[in-house]
Amino acid sequence: MLKSPYDTDCITWSPQGRLFQIEYAMEAIKQGSLCVGLKSNDYAILATLNRAPSKLAEYQQKLYEIDEHIGLCFSGLTADGRLICKYLRTEALNYKYTHGTNINPQRLVGKLSDKAQIKTQRHSKRPYGVGCLVIGLDENGPHVYETSPDANFYEYYAVAIGARCQSAKTYLEKNYETFSNLSKDELIIHAVKAVKSSAQSDVELNGRSVSVAIVGRDTPFKFLTSDEIEATLSQLSQAMEVEV
Amino acid sequence: MLKSPYDTDCITWSPQGRLFQIEYAMEAIKQGSLCVGLKSNDYAILATLNRAPSKLAEYQQKLYEIDEHIGLCFSGLTADGRLICKYLRTEALNYKYTHGTNINPQRLVGKLSDKAQIKTQRHSKRPYGVGCLVIGLDENGPHVYETSPDANFYEYYAVAIGARCQSAKTYLEKNYETFSNLSKDELIIHAVKAVKSSAQSDVELNGRSVSVAIVGRDTPFKFLTSDEIEATLSQLSQAMEVEV
Amino acid sequence: MLKSPYDTDCITWSPQGRLFQIEYAMEAIKQGSLCVGLKSNDYAILATLNRAPSKLAEYQQKLYEIDEHIGLCFSGLTADGRLICKYLRTEALNYKYTHGTNINPQRLVGKLSDKAQIKTQRHSKRPYGVGCLVIGLDENGPHVYETSPDANFYEYYAVAIGARCQSAKTYLEKNYETFSNLSKDELIIHAVKAVKSSAQSDVELNGRSVSVAIVGRDTPFKFLTSDEIEATLSQLSQAMEVEV
Amino acid sequence: MLKSPYDTDCITWSPQGRLFQIEYAMEAIKQGSLCVGLKSNDYAILATLNRAPSKLAEYQQKLYEIDEHIGLCFSGLTADGRLICKYLRTEALNYKYTHGTNINPQRLVGKLSDKAQIKTQRHSKRPYGVGCLVIGLDENGPHVYETSPDANFYEYYAVAIGARCQSAKTYLEKNYETFSNLSKDELIIHAVKAVKSSAQSDVELNGRSVSVAIVGRDTPFKFLTSDEIEATLSQLSQAMEVEV
Amino acid sequence: MLKSPYDTDCITWSPQGRLFQIEYAMEAIKQGSLCVGLKSNDYAILATLNRAPSKLAEYQQKLYEIDEHIGLCFSGLTADGRLICKYLRTEALNYKYTHGTNINPQRLVGKLSDKAQIKTQRHSKRPYGVGCLVIGLDENGPHVYETSPDANFYEYYAVAIGARCQSAKTYLEKNYETFSNLSKDELIIHAVKAVKSSAQSDVELNGRSVSVAIVGRDTPFKFLTSDEIEATLSQLSQAMEVEV
Amino acid sequence: MLKSPYDTDCITWSPQGRLFQIEYAMEAIKQGSLCVGLKSNDYAILATLNRAPSKLAEYQQKLYEIDEHIGLCFSGLTADGRLICKYLRTEALNYKYTHGTNINPQRLVGKLSDKAQIKTQRHSKRPYGVGCLVIGLDENGPHVYETSPDANFYEYYAVAIGARCQSAKTYLEKNYETFSNLSKDELIIHAVKAVKSSAQSDVELNGRSVSVAIVGRDTPFKFLTSDEIEATLSQLSQAMEVEV
Amino acid sequence: MLKSPYDTDCITWSPQGRLFQIEYAMEAIKQGSLCVGLKSNDYAILATLNRAPSKLAEYQQKLYEIDEHIGLCFSGLTADGRLICKYLRTEALNYKYTHGTNINPQRLVGKLSDKAQIKTQRHSKRPYGVGCLVIGLDENGPHVYETSPDANFYEYYAVAIGARCQSAKTYLEKNYETFSNLSKDELIIHAVKAVKSSAQSDVELNGRSVSVAIVGRDTPFKFLTSDEIEATLSQLSQAMEVEV
Repeated sequence: MLKSPYDTDCITWSPQGRLFQIEYAMEAIKQGSLCVGLKSNDYAILATLNRAPSKLAEYQQKLYEIDEHIGLCFSGLTADGRLICKYLRTEALNYKYTHGTNINPQRLVGKLSDKAQIKTQRHSKRPYGVGCLVIGLDENGPHVYETSPDANFYEYYAVAIGARCQSAKTYLEKNYETFSNLSKDELIIHAVKAVKSSAQSDVELNGRSVSVAIVGRDTPFKFLTSDEIEATLSQLSQAMEVEV
Repeated sequence: MLKSPYDTDCITWSPQGRLFQIEYAMEAIKQGSLCVGLKSNDYAILATLNRAPSKLAEYQQKLYEIDEHIGLCFSGLTADGRLICKYLRTEALNYKYTHGTNINPQRLVGKLSDKAQIKTQRHSKRPYGVGCLVIGLDENGPHVYETSPDANFYEYYAVAIGARCQSAKTYLEKNYETFSNLSKDELIIHAVKAVKSSAQSDVELNGRSVSVAIVGRDTPFKFLTSDEIEATLSQLSQAMEVEV
Repeated sequence: MLKSPYDTDCITWSPQGRLFQIEYAMEAIKQGSLCVGLKSNDYAILATLNRAPSKLAEYQQKLYEIDEHIGLCFSGLTADGRLICKYLRTEALNYKYTHGTNINPQRLVGKLSDKAQIKTQRHSKRPYGVGCLVIGLDENGPHVYETSPDANFYEYYAVAIGARCQSAKTYLEKNYETFSNLSKDELIIHAVKAVKSSAQSDVELNGRSVSVAIVGRDTPFKFLTSDEIEATLSQLSQAMEVEV
Repeated sequence: MLKSPYDTDCITWSPQGRLFQIEYAMEAIKQGSLCVGLKSNDYAILATLNRAPSKLAEYQQKLYEIDEHIGLCFSGLTADGRLICKYLRTEALNYKYTHGTNINPQRLVGKLSDKAQIKTQRHSKRPYGVGCLVIGLDENGPHVYETSPDANFYEYYAVAIGARCQSAKTYLEKNYETFSNLSKDELIIHAVKAVKSSAQSDVELNGRSVSVAIVGRDTPFKFLTSDEIEATLSQLSQAMEVEV
Repeated sequence: MLKSPYDTDCITWSPQGRLFQIEYAMEAIKQGSLCVGLKSNDYAILATLNRAPSKLAEYQQKLYEIDEHIGLCFSGLTADGRLICKYLRTEALNYKYTHGTNINPQRLVGKLSDKAQIKTQRHSKRPYGVGCLVIGLDENGPHVYETSPDANFYEYYAVAIGARCQSAKTYLEKNYETFSNLSKDELIIHAVKAVKSSAQSDVELNGRSVSVAIVGRDTPFKFLTSDEIEATLSQLSQAMEVEV
Repeated sequence: MLKSPYDTDCITWSPQGRLFQIEYAMEAIKQGSLCVGLKSNDYAILATLNRAPSKLAEYQQKLYEIDEHIGLCFSGLTADGRLICKYLRTEALNYKYTHGTNINPQRLVGKLSDKAQIKTQRHSKRPYGVGCLVIGLDENGPHVYETSPDANFYEYYAVAIGARCQSAKTYLEKNYETFSNLSKDELIIHAVKAVKSSAQSDVELNGRSVSVAIVGRDTPFKFLTSDEIEATLSQLSQAMEVEV
Repeated sequence: MLKSPYDTDCITWSPQGRLFQIEYAMEAIKQGSLCVGLKSNDYAILATLNRAPSKLAEYQQKLYEIDEHIGLCFSGLTADGRLICKYLRTEALNYKYTHGTNINPQRLVGKLSDKAQIKTQRHSKRPYGVGCLVIGLDENGPHVYETSPDANFYEYYAVAIGARCQSAKTYLEKNYETFSNLSKDELIIHAVKAVKSSAQSDVELNGRSVSVAIVGRDTPFKFLTSDEIEATLSQLSQAMEVEV
């Protein structure tokens, strides 16, 4: 492939009005770990498929609590993701300190976008190489957001990013219209199923390789325990065997 | 196409006295979502054709209230548009706080141009990749402005920017001379018709994919509700069927 | 045409002692809108041929009042021109505030040149892409100045810049020696005639496409109204028909 | 090998979403001295195979105490490693001064990652050329972390980095599941064996060429003395002879 | 001509120890307007051949008073010349204010050289593109200095710079040994003759196209009036006719 | 030899994880003057082979006292070496002033390394082009350190750097194991012999071309006088003649 | 000659450990005016062969007093030399003000080297293009130093730099061993003879084209007058005629 003469930095426009460096940064997400987000009327859930650099290593967490009503997982450059996570926690804390109340999740996601925009308009910086899924609760119920290296963000009913996310997306597209009134447990099963549909056959799914977190109208942000995840996984296996 | 040796940054003049990077940035608008602006003697209206990154996502709003007498929609790089929107809101608020009265819309648009000019004369920045339509009310009645990445701005009777805007422009050119004395509802129908004329045939037009906002002599800036938009859309369909 | 290796920025001298980037910036003026300036012993006049980006748009003004005794019009990059205009207004105001009297026009034009010079000697900036005509009154009577991207300025008896300015120049060269003792109205007719001689045949000349402003010994800076301009234009048409 | 046009600095993304300069920096670790880290339920151990630039020189230490409960060794660019070591000591000291208690090792490693991230997003810096192994004790027991030039960090049961580390890794993979309940001395033997398995046959192993340090529930960070290391080494030799 | 790889900026030495960018900047002077300087024991004189950008423009002055005992004219980039002129005036004024006496002309010229040197040793600047002639009076009598873009300065008995200056130089070389004891008027005639010898045949010499200024033991810096210059010019014409 | 595309600055990693610019800087040492360092249990000695730029010049000293217990000699870029020397003296003095005691030599060498590291991680600097030998005394006796442009430092029993240092190294490798218990004078003879073994045959060795300095348990840093060195040299010559 | 890829700036090392830009800067000295320095036990002398840019110009002085016991002449870029001269004067003055005594000449020369070193290690500067000879007196008698663009300095018995300096060097090498006990006048004759031996045959030697200055145990720095120099020159001519 020939190199475009306009893809060297993020402040050079191509003649067609594109910023290639920003587009390239978005490719980094496709190599990251799988992240799934979805919501019903009452709950929003994040689920990730964790990776370990070797057999000798612990699985690496990419799912974090930001505040009691907001959670985040990310796919792409881990160092960038950690920096963003830290930034959001500080902003949420500052807001609570100043206003005495929880920050609106979309407002927080907007702040992240503002910060990311700056990285796309300076010649001495690079766009972040990470996509984030954010779940949060406000007075209208739960929300799922995706943020991207181009400093844009979107709201979703259900979403999957990261390596091999296409299968999870297909699963979510088939089922998201049924999510609205599901119970917490039913929604968790969908989240895990979506993760499972994108996992390679040789990846072992267990309480450490899969992370799940939930936030809801009556539920502050919390991680599922390893045992809860494994229970869900074995429930799924039995169901499948039955199907077969 | 051969690369021009003068199109690498926005501070290099071509031998013909052009700044290619600024011209390229203007191309970004052509890939953005459709925006339409128009006015009568008493009202100015913005209408946008919203997009969603996938079936699973909500439509993304590109139409914002700046102040009770000013609204904005944009086409191009969303992150740049959000930044501009935030800037204008702050400026409008500061003005109101200092002077105790609403800022003149053209003055506000001028401030935006001043800010955008800076991005076209520094080697470490890039021109904004976004075009904005701004409606606003002053003592002479409603106005429609377009701002552009080259830091220029124009006043229009009616205008359309963004992807496939040519059809909307053609519609507006045919009809704008009749707008002066139209009622609020008649003007809304023209706005929606202009949007419709540029929409691809496979795009569903409904209360979420189309946004409309109005400001007028007796009308502070307000969004049409989803229901109002759908009512207008179905009215149009019936009218068309009748025509056919 | 082969690219010169010395024309990439405004701080690189060619072996012949030229700064190509500054010369290229001067080409931008040739693509701008037509500006005409001229003076008698008692009056100085600016006239511009305005442009509109489309049939749907208002004509764009490029003629501004700087102070009650100084006016400016420009040709080239509009955003640069607006910035310069703003700068001059602030300088004129500051001078009046500090000294309690109007700033001398040549002094103000000199300040603009000083500012423009800086843009020609920094590697991270670009020369302004705009030429300005400035009229002003001091104790010796009216003056007409031209400023240019190379940070130079000149005084003229009569001058025209911008697209197709050659015809206007030719008209002025033929007639400028007769201007000295003309009345205000006679001078206005020469200004409009000069504009007309450079206008393309398909351009409609009317009270909005042509702007005229005057300053003089007994006349603070003022714009001619649309009606005054149209009166002058129709007077010219009748005169021409008579000539024919 | 052809040069990639995207590998010149760490702020340029390749079209596939990679940052080559960061990946190249990680190669520096493979040329560094061998470092091994491992842990049982009660102890964590670091062991290094030291190098001397010539026969006339002392062996160069790459294993440092950070605090009484944290130790670090590194492989790669020594100067970068020393700088990191100094930074961590200061941070640990500051924390103890402010909070009156020891810093959590993972928190300290996170701080290092935050610092390293900055080096990967500025055009005037380079990513660190060093990988670190950190052992530390918190209320859950001992931990082993690896940090890397891409500003990421991982937790391990056992890990080896540096030149010829593959043999040590293989040794650790075979044995790490048996480490949990080992005594301090048994764990030291595994550490030294792992080092030995990666040492070239012509490298003399002795109390100066091998460094070992330990931290544990009842053991503040301490280096093994030269004599203790030599005792372990001779114990291993005898055991091997017996095996043979 | 092939481009030298060492002539891109003023901080790169060629293998022969030359700084090409500084040498190129000196070429700019050869395209500037003609400047002549000369002195007797009691007087120093500057004379310039002014240019006008068109028939419609006034001649542009390049000869300035710096202080009551110092004057300057320049050839090359006008904007650079104006900046230098402004700098010298400020320095002269500051000196007078601080010391209560006139600054020594050579000291002032030295200050200009110091300022110009900085432009030759920074990668983000360019050398000035202007050569200046400075006349001044100190306790030893009048002096004539030339300053140059390489930040060097020289003292002269008589000197000419700018376009076609070779003829003026030849005239001066033939006559300068006779200048010492000439009267003010005789010296002026030599200055004008030198200017005339370098003027193209189609250039009209008159009181506006030629500027002359003088400073002397009993003469503060002053410009000759238009009439005085024209008197000198007609005197010369008559003399020539007589010669013929 | 083809240029590597990764060797232009010290912040660009090669695909193999090397920083070529740092490696190139280390080559500068090989062209510097010969420096030798060695130690016994009680003394450390530095010896240099001085150079003179011409027959007309004095020999140039490269051996300096840093403090009463620390000395330094260097090979490579003299200007860099002088700067380092100055830095170390200031640091040693500051330490003594603050702590009332001599700085530990290794600590001082570490400070130099920290300073040198910064030069290897900024795009606008270059690594130092100088290698230093440092002798110093602490409570464990004398030490010899080498510092290098890559900001690393090593401790040695005996070491030689600079032009033609291989012969000196070979001499030291043969003899260093006998140094431990030598007297001051015996150690000096070894130092001078090492220098002599690397000196070209046409270089005259005398009290000015050879410098020697010593520090020891009972000996504050001091230079040998010219006479002492010449005495040692003649002693060596006689011994050699005897050997022959 | 092919361009080396490592000679573009002074912070890029060649693979052989050279900094070409510094070496190129040293070439500038070879094009400068001839400078000669020499000393006896009691006196040090500087002599220069001055140049004039044209027949019309005064000879340009390159020999300056720094303080009553220190003098300097330079060869190369005059603007750089003047800047250095100014710097040294300020430093000498500051020292005298602070310490109440004259600065040691070597210390002052060292300060210049420190300043020059900075120019060799910043990417936005260039090395000075000038070599200086400095004479000075301290308690050990007179000294002659040479400073160079590489920020190094040397002490000499006698030295010559600048254009065609080889003949002067040869003269000095033949005679310098006889200088120690010469009288002031005898030493001056050697200085002028050395200058004469390097002067081109068509250069007129007189009291303005040759400058000589002396400093000594009983002699504060002073310039020889024009008459004294011409006396020496005529004395030499007579001697030569006698020799012939």
